[in-house]
Amino acid sequence: MKEQTCAVVVVGNEVLSGKIHDTNSYFAARELRKAGVALKRIAVVADEVDAIAQEVRYCAERFDIVLTSGGIGPTHDDLTMEGVAAAFGRKLVADPALSALIDEHSGGRRLAARFKMANVPEGALLSHSPDLWFPTVRLDNVFILPGIPQLFEPKVVKLCAEFAASPYFMRVIYSQAGESVIAEYLNACLERFPELLLGSYPEIDNSEYRVKITLESKDRVYLEQAFDHLLQLLPREAVVKTE
Amino acid sequence: MKEQTCAVVVVGNEVLSGKIHDTNSYFAARELRKAGVALKRIAVVADEVDAIAQEVRYCAERFDIVLTSGGIGPTHDDLTMEGVAAAFGRKLVADPALSALIDEHSGGRRLAARFKMANVPEGALLSHSPDLWFPTVRLDNVFILPGIPQLFEPKVVKLCAEFAASPYFMRVIYSQAGESVIAEYLNACLERFPELLLGSYPEIDNSEYRVKITLESKDRVYLEQAFDHLLQLLPREAVVKTE
Repeated sequence: MKEQTCAVVVVGNEVLSGKIHDTNSYFAARELRKAGVALKRIAVVADEVDAIAQEVRYCAERFDIVLTSGGIGPTHDDLTMEGVAAAFGRKLVADPALSALIDEHSGGRRLAARFKMANVPEGALLSHSPDLWFPTVRLDNVFILPGIPQLFEPKVVKLCAEFAASPYFMRVIYSQAGESVIAEYLNACLERFPELLLGSYPEIDNSEYRVKITLESKDRVYLEQAFDHLLQLLPREAVVKTE
Repeated sequence: MKEQTCAVVVVGNEVLSGKIHDTNSYFAARELRKAGVALKRIAVVADEVDAIAQEVRYCAERFDIVLTSGGIGPTHDDLTMEGVAAAFGRKLVADPALSALIDEHSGGRRLAARFKMANVPEGALLSHSPDLWFPTVRLDNVFILPGIPQLFEPKVVKLCAEFAASPYFMRVIYSQAGESVIAEYLNACLERFPELLLGSYPEIDNSEYRVKITLESKDRVYLEQAFDHLLQLLPREAVVKTE
């Protein structure tokens, strides 16, 4: 089965100006990984229709799934719906079902600004979930999610359950030898196991080890073979511990 | 003076697979903001030459400054130099000064892998700083920085001191009224002060206020005028506090 790919597009000047540290892309990265979906790209773009449209179009053409985060509230800087519509050359139209839902949820107070949230790209689908009153708006392969983490996270969890394919398995080797020393062994291991996802991450302020080496594969047997092979290749004194 | 713009390109499968929460882009966002440089885009791309090259080319053409983070170590997955070279249609060449520096720093151990780090895009400039032995490699408007935060951060601080233009000033209003209620006042304020950078950020689990409204400008007088104007527009009971 071909692996599903995904991109996350975070819309928000508050991230670009350093006012908040985005946690949504990190949350999505972990959930997608667990679901066996390969996240290939994260982009943070400004609250500008053109910037959103260009990035969404780029991602929608290249990846199976696109998740957007943020920019769907009632205020002037909420432009994601417009940006996604532009990415697909669609108009923004008021969705009657969404209008009714907003009306119901507003407790009789007809606030003009809130009805801005009923405007979605023409042809978009609404997917409802029992725990959150506002549905997820989907256009083609783009899922438009709210930026507030308390709303974003449950929606991602729900979507990932739908995406879930085969998961990744991982082993870890902690090395006392630095990257320059172990590089040749990593290369040799990759030559023998070309499908292995092999990462090496140096840590400077760690007294226990100098490099964390991660080995990943969706094939558990292949992974264990590669793991054993790399352990044999590495100088014995280099290996601090494994997981 | 025209505002300087910047993009940050983070290279790293470890971020996309959710193994680490990237802090470099958040650090850079805050430092650039303090320096008065407008960060317009953050992208996290995979450890793949094509993905790096495409993103770097896109950013280098559109923004004044591009910072890359990560992918410059000695191992197989360190491909940023190759990606940046490809973005500009250049070759990778061994830099003699960098080779000598690496030699010196290696204490006589000639590790082949480490000399991979002497390969830079043809025409790149090296900029040395007294506190870190490895120089910053620059090609055109692209600054190639290491991904380890302890190395990335001091290099960003140093660069931002060079970029520093006029800083942004900020005022904040905390509102007890929700976004749907205040949206019209924000719009009215923007109509009067079109140059104002106005952000509104709802917080769900906060008992003190419901929306944080940020007003920013490089012109302190303009900012204060806009701040006073918005305070007058907002219903008095909506305003919890200001900063």
